[in-house]
Amino acid sequence: MFKPAFPGIEPVRFQGPTADALLAYRYYDKDRIVRGKRMEDQLRLAVCYWHTFAGDGSDVFGAGTFDRSWQRGGDAVQAAEEKAASAFEFFEKLGVRYFCFHDRDVAPEAPGLAETNAILDKIVEAIAGHMQRTGVKLLWGTANLFSHPRYLAGAATNPDPEVFAYAAAQVKKALDVTRELGGENYVLWGGREGYDTLLNTDMKRELDQLGRFMALVADYKNKIGFKGTLLIEPKPMEPTKHQYDFDAATVFAFLQRYDLTREFRLNIEANHATLAGHSFEHEIAYAIANNIFGSVDINRGDTLLGWDTDQFPNDPGELSLVLRRILLAGGLGTGGFNFDAKLRRSSIELQDMFHAHVGGIDVLAKALLIADRMIDDGKLASLVGERYSGWNAPFGKQILDGQLSLSALSERVLAAKSEPARRSGHQEMLENLVARYVF
Amino acid sequence: MFKPAFPGIEPVRFQGPTADALLAYRYYDKDRIVRGKRMEDQLRLAVCYWHTFAGDGSDVFGAGTFDRSWQRGGDAVQAAEEKAASAFEFFEKLGVRYFCFHDRDVAPEAPGLAETNAILDKIVEAIAGHMQRTGVKLLWGTANLFSHPRYLAGAATNPDPEVFAYAAAQVKKALDVTRELGGENYVLWGGREGYDTLLNTDMKRELDQLGRFMALVADYKNKIGFKGTLLIEPKPMEPTKHQYDFDAATVFAFLQRYDLTREFRLNIEANHATLAGHSFEHEIAYAIANNIFGSVDINRGDTLLGWDTDQFPNDPGELSLVLRRILLAGGLGTGGFNFDAKLRRSSIELQDMFHAHVGGIDVLAKALLIADRMIDDGKLASLVGERYSGWNAPFGKQILDGQLSLSALSERVLAAKSEPARRSGHQEMLENLVARYVF
Amino acid sequence: MFKPAFPGIEPVRFQGPTADALLAYRYYDKDRIVRGKRMEDQLRLAVCYWHTFAGDGSDVFGAGTFDRSWQRGGDAVQAAEEKAASAFEFFEKLGVRYFCFHDRDVAPEAPGLAETNAILDKIVEAIAGHMQRTGVKLLWGTANLFSHPRYLAGAATNPDPEVFAYAAAQVKKALDVTRELGGENYVLWGGREGYDTLLNTDMKRELDQLGRFMALVADYKNKIGFKGTLLIEPKPMEPTKHQYDFDAATVFAFLQRYDLTREFRLNIEANHATLAGHSFEHEIAYAIANNIFGSVDINRGDTLLGWDTDQFPNDPGELSLVLRRILLAGGLGTGGFNFDAKLRRSSIELQDMFHAHVGGIDVLAKALLIADRMIDDGKLASLVGERYSGWNAPFGKQILDGQLSLSALSERVLAAKSEPARRSGHQEMLENLVARYVF
Amino acid sequence: MFKPAFPGIEPVRFQGPTADALLAYRYYDKDRIVRGKRMEDQLRLAVCYWHTFAGDGSDVFGAGTFDRSWQRGGDAVQAAEEKAASAFEFFEKLGVRYFCFHDRDVAPEAPGLAETNAILDKIVEAIAGHMQRTGVKLLWGTANLFSHPRYLAGAATNPDPEVFAYAAAQVKKALDVTRELGGENYVLWGGREGYDTLLNTDMKRELDQLGRFMALVADYKNKIGFKGTLLIEPKPMEPTKHQYDFDAATVFAFLQRYDLTREFRLNIEANHATLAGHSFEHEIAYAIANNIFGSVDINRGDTLLGWDTDQFPNDPGELSLVLRRILLAGGLGTGGFNFDAKLRRSSIELQDMFHAHVGGIDVLAKALLIADRMIDDGKLASLVGERYSGWNAPFGKQILDGQLSLSALSERVLAAKSEPARRSGHQEMLENLVARYVF
Repeated sequence: MFKPAFPGIEPVRFQGPTADALLAYRYYDKDRIVRGKRMEDQLRLAVCYWHTFAGDGSDVFGAGTFDRSWQRGGDAVQAAEEKAASAFEFFEKLGVRYFCFHDRDVAPEAPGLAETNAILDKIVEAIAGHMQRTGVKLLWGTANLFSHPRYLAGAATNPDPEVFAYAAAQVKKALDVTRELGGENYVLWGGREGYDTLLNTDMKRELDQLGRFMALVADYKNKIGFKGTLLIEPKPMEPTKHQYDFDAATVFAFLQRYDLTREFRLNIEANHATLAGHSFEHEIAYAIANNIFGSVDINRGDTLLGWDTDQFPNDPGELSLVLRRILLAGGLGTGGFNFDAKLRRSSIELQDMFHAHVGGIDVLAKALLIADRMIDDGKLASLVGERYSGWNAPFGKQILDGQLSLSALSERVLAAKSEPARRSGHQEMLENLVARYVF
Repeated sequence: MFKPAFPGIEPVRFQGPTADALLAYRYYDKDRIVRGKRMEDQLRLAVCYWHTFAGDGSDVFGAGTFDRSWQRGGDAVQAAEEKAASAFEFFEKLGVRYFCFHDRDVAPEAPGLAETNAILDKIVEAIAGHMQRTGVKLLWGTANLFSHPRYLAGAATNPDPEVFAYAAAQVKKALDVTRELGGENYVLWGGREGYDTLLNTDMKRELDQLGRFMALVADYKNKIGFKGTLLIEPKPMEPTKHQYDFDAATVFAFLQRYDLTREFRLNIEANHATLAGHSFEHEIAYAIANNIFGSVDINRGDTLLGWDTDQFPNDPGELSLVLRRILLAGGLGTGGFNFDAKLRRSSIELQDMFHAHVGGIDVLAKALLIADRMIDDGKLASLVGERYSGWNAPFGKQILDGQLSLSALSERVLAAKSEPARRSGHQEMLENLVARYVF
Repeated sequence: MFKPAFPGIEPVRFQGPTADALLAYRYYDKDRIVRGKRMEDQLRLAVCYWHTFAGDGSDVFGAGTFDRSWQRGGDAVQAAEEKAASAFEFFEKLGVRYFCFHDRDVAPEAPGLAETNAILDKIVEAIAGHMQRTGVKLLWGTANLFSHPRYLAGAATNPDPEVFAYAAAQVKKALDVTRELGGENYVLWGGREGYDTLLNTDMKRELDQLGRFMALVADYKNKIGFKGTLLIEPKPMEPTKHQYDFDAATVFAFLQRYDLTREFRLNIEANHATLAGHSFEHEIAYAIANNIFGSVDINRGDTLLGWDTDQFPNDPGELSLVLRRILLAGGLGTGGFNFDAKLRRSSIELQDMFHAHVGGIDVLAKALLIADRMIDDGKLASLVGERYSGWNAPFGKQILDGQLSLSALSERVLAAKSEPARRSGHQEMLENLVARYVF
Repeated sequence: MFKPAFPGIEPVRFQGPTADALLAYRYYDKDRIVRGKRMEDQLRLAVCYWHTFAGDGSDVFGAGTFDRSWQRGGDAVQAAEEKAASAFEFFEKLGVRYFCFHDRDVAPEAPGLAETNAILDKIVEAIAGHMQRTGVKLLWGTANLFSHPRYLAGAATNPDPEVFAYAAAQVKKALDVTRELGGENYVLWGGREGYDTLLNTDMKRELDQLGRFMALVADYKNKIGFKGTLLIEPKPMEPTKHQYDFDAATVFAFLQRYDLTREFRLNIEANHATLAGHSFEHEIAYAIANNIFGSVDINRGDTLLGWDTDQFPNDPGELSLVLRRILLAGGLGTGGFNFDAKLRRSSIELQDMFHAHVGGIDVLAKALLIADRMIDDGKLASLVGERYSGWNAPFGKQILDGQLSLSALSERVLAAKSEPARRSGHQEMLENLVARYVF
């Protein structure tokens, strides 16, 4: 129906570590078995619709720089269909099995919600056709509750309940559509759920509103029998001064406070982690430790810059430690690695879209292979286990079991003849050990 | 018994806004009634023992610069007694009613815990005498679980249960002593409760240890009938790369996770807030919104520097908004404003100790007066109230009461003929309004 | 010709510190004499065209929210004329004597440069008329070398000399126009003069290009007899990862390296200072110390956020210290205080434009009055002077005059019987002293 | 004379990439020829005396944790001799050819400078003996002008000329000693050369003092015929709020301002670069572009923490790009890679000293091998060269040669029929290309 968006670009294939071509996978060999699963099934890679097909290279200081065949205007619905066709051409050529989208990425907004929903249905039908044709699947859907001016003061946390209602209506539809397309998760990112200034903000009230909204979403999800996972995506700032979903811990506090821990898990984004002052691995570890890990938006930030740069990942060393944690915790479940990453504004060629994703995918594949070796080898786990061995001995267990009071512990120390032995944390040795797996 | 530590320095007195003397209060008029209480009772100001009497002006790059009469060595116990006498001379001359201390600030550590406790008892007895003599009271006590090398890998979160036991013994004693001295709160700051590297860390296990420790503390507090409030003090980094008590939200998540919300509240520090990427007011507002606000460590950081500079507060505008929140939430309760602030390393004169505290106290007093006017005037509250008025109308209430599902809300929006009205957030106007109270 | 843009909004007038109206000046009394000049002549306030008339409230996460009469489309040239009329209506009602603009703020870009220049001429003619009619003057003009996609890899530092040429042509025209309108300065802000990645960057070459560009600008300025000052505006990041004009010191290094110190001075922006890790006062002090201070873009950032928030100033205390420095250095010269500040995206009412500027102006006026008192009082200057008094004594002078070698100084120390005396830096006392002027 | 400090630890040897032992070099094969020189001669690795032999594991929150045989007190001179013996045992076992020191690292301070110098001479004699015996050489010496309280307000920038004199005397001696020991460079790091608050600071005066100081150092260097390179080490903060040597650009501005560019080059530290908001590679590139590159303090910071963590390097990818730049600029000259890095406070075992350095050395060796391949391959250089090719064509050359004025360039653009062509910056492709060399 539409002309190819990427003429002359061949499907990207695995060619092994010594491949000379830049548009080839050196490590991503999707059928290779790693820890009992195909690499593709371990990594569950997804392309995002927003940056890759709705982005135009504009930034706060300048106009769009990309010249994409699917963004050349004309009839909005037809353009959305062409965008969908282009997206699936890209997914196929890249060889990635999942994608993610916001409602407004795939279809334009019309004057009223009813009409907007009708257009969305039409495009979703086209997308369903592409999915069937290509086998590409939906990792998750979501609703854009931040771009339209109506959300200038938030969606669920808006001072106006009519905006809450609008957001509710939009999420209802996005959940319907996600279910229709067989989406495996549904994500709630708090777009403008935060505040610009405390001077005009009633924080308690807004948090209560957000708690109610999430409860409604969970109710509706169960009512329609959506089997996917509900995910909240933490982010500390941007666009508001303070986003309520600051980091994993803040969301965990919120979920507990509003009794939502059974219904929601987290979609951790690497760049949002570093904006919040945490390493990416920290956020993953925290989510796993508290049993709320769900999925990953994989990108990287620039820790010397103070905003979400959403660059493609390029550090297999860091990611191997993250993957090791995820594998040891049982793998991704319904989650995946979604490339919430965008081309630099100067990367204006169509080929750059491929370079960026191919690089990111290969980094993850390499990281998976490293993680696999770390786990097989077992040295890291064994050194950490040994460090805490006292807690598996009787005295440690008694403490954790609550059998020893402060007084009892005090008696023990007063009776002791010596200080506790001091042991090295061996940080540098462990860093060297990790380096051996990585390079 | 000891020679005066501050000879020639007169007690600091209220002299009114036009005072010429630098060592005079311009705003802090302790008996002035503000919102129904004496200023002293509203602010509950405290001097900290550690920076002010145990600090010597050293930093990571250089040796101590202060030459204090109570730090000139000799017999350690006698020196501690002289330090106590000097401290109370200072409290009296400053006219502040509270102080705070760590066990190791007031008394030195001896080779074994039994002996250390005995020395502590002796000094505490001297302190009790000073307290009785002067009427100065103890805002809170705490235990130093971070300076001694035994805590190099944490206290409660140490990989070695023997260190956990030592920390337990130390906290038991510090609680005993705090109760003896009539302390109104007991603070737990997570010194080295965090990790330097995830490579050697079992986060889940360490959080479980910390949860157990806090439960033991609460049990013991109740057992001995300590009536004060237990407080946890959030801090994001320093000395470890990641401190488990990162910020108010993280501690709230932890308290809920380990079922401790009934027993603990927060001691919010201004500089710890900014290190975590939050405004001081944010942390206070979050704690109040979630009903875990307890007390304040009042200082300021330098947001262009990445560590805890612990400077004295100097911005009555910012603090007036904080005080307004606290007053509207019912005041400080058992909490107070503790000056966890230290002299700059170059401020080597004894008079500098007074300048620093007098400035900080006056800033808080001025801020209290501003807050009082803001509340009396009511404009800020009324503008915010009006902004959320829709949530007090029937539709808003129905949403919050759970009477409207996503589907019901969607029907309403689909039926509506128009977009929600957009209203200004009026940030700049509100900033100007605040400026009218401040300058 | 056009309907009023701000119907129903009265000119803002000075009403004194107790004014009740929010749209009134409490401190800005333009004819009041401060340090020998009218307040208006001391502060030389300017409104910026870009944020205030070209901005629409959009951000990276969402569409524009402002609904301005002069932004409703139609014929581009006519719209630009309406914008100009609206701008001057605003300047007059606000009572501000200067404005600043980029070429593309005032007039749209047409397909070719010749046509673009022709449109610009037409609008400039209209602006000249408004200026004559109202007495409003041009503080500075500049060229937008960053919004158009042609500048995606920089202007003068572009890898393509054709883009350098385009930038040169644009600056030539902007200089012509600035001279025509009697502009008192011309500003060069390095839009995209920096790099996104060192991987594709030849830094030495790009710096040479930039040096050449600046030399051409100075040559042309002299050729056409433009009497204003050439100003470079430092900024550390945004939009590129690294902007070559990182901060005042970096620009000073550049100016010296390319022998441009006689021709260029600095336009210091408050928010750019803090993004570079410096206080605003630091950048001003550095520029003054090195004799390159020129003008000020006055706004504020949020040091807890990592991007240019461009908020209106609200801290008279900080600004009083800055103004004190500027006054002591002889005042603003041809420079001024340009409000390079934008409304928050939620401040959608026309009145918010006034609230924002009125607040900022009053903060500067208040700061000027405080600075005046500080200087009159002389205590700060005297304390600092006294601190360095040794350098005015013979020994200090001999050192600075180069009469004493390392060996001679060493001999002196070896012969001395004592350590140099240590003196307090009195930071807290000085902070308290400043507080006395401020609140 | 002294007992071995590292009994039972064998010299570390190259064992190749598949080595199993953790205390073995996998990549550092000192005699391997890389780009025409032995690896040892390319990298010129140095161990620092301060962290490694004078550090005790203390931090701002706690006491020292290391228990080193050479730090157990007793006679200070004898202890310094034992420290020296231990240091050279370490250098030899590690197989590193250079070391660096401050005067006060190697010898203690006595009551007066004459006596202090005498002790220093004695220890330097011992060190000279060790150097002769082992073949270990001195990369650079320096003076500690920041630890002693006399420097609380700076050394050369002190408000008191007597302190300036003391610093001068100390540097004179340190230069003498460095020359005696055949040091190949002399470093000036601005310890406390900065300010804590602008309120008590005369920046212009302090910069003039610093300029004078540096001129005296250069004079003395030439007088005594010291052939090494004088190096200034930039750092942005810590210990003062603002250090005058903020970053490479700031130092370059200073050197030009005080006419010192012929005498000084830069010692770039990786962690100081990131504290200043720059990548390490940026600072190296800037120094090379401006012909002031001298030497490197190699460590890493943690960009999520706001202070100098001084960790050992662990990223061969980043370092390979740095090494590539240095090699392309002609190599290190008299400079080297000095490990200004310290063990984590928990790394208390003697073996941890080896683990840390072995890891760092291997990372640099690996990076060197990668850089070598990048240069041989030439693809990066060729892509960058091609990007700027227009500047080597006649039009580009004419611009740079100053043959084309703004007017001439404007004419060209006005005459042109089209926009400059836009070309991709290919950032992601280049990142992938680099990844091919690295992993």
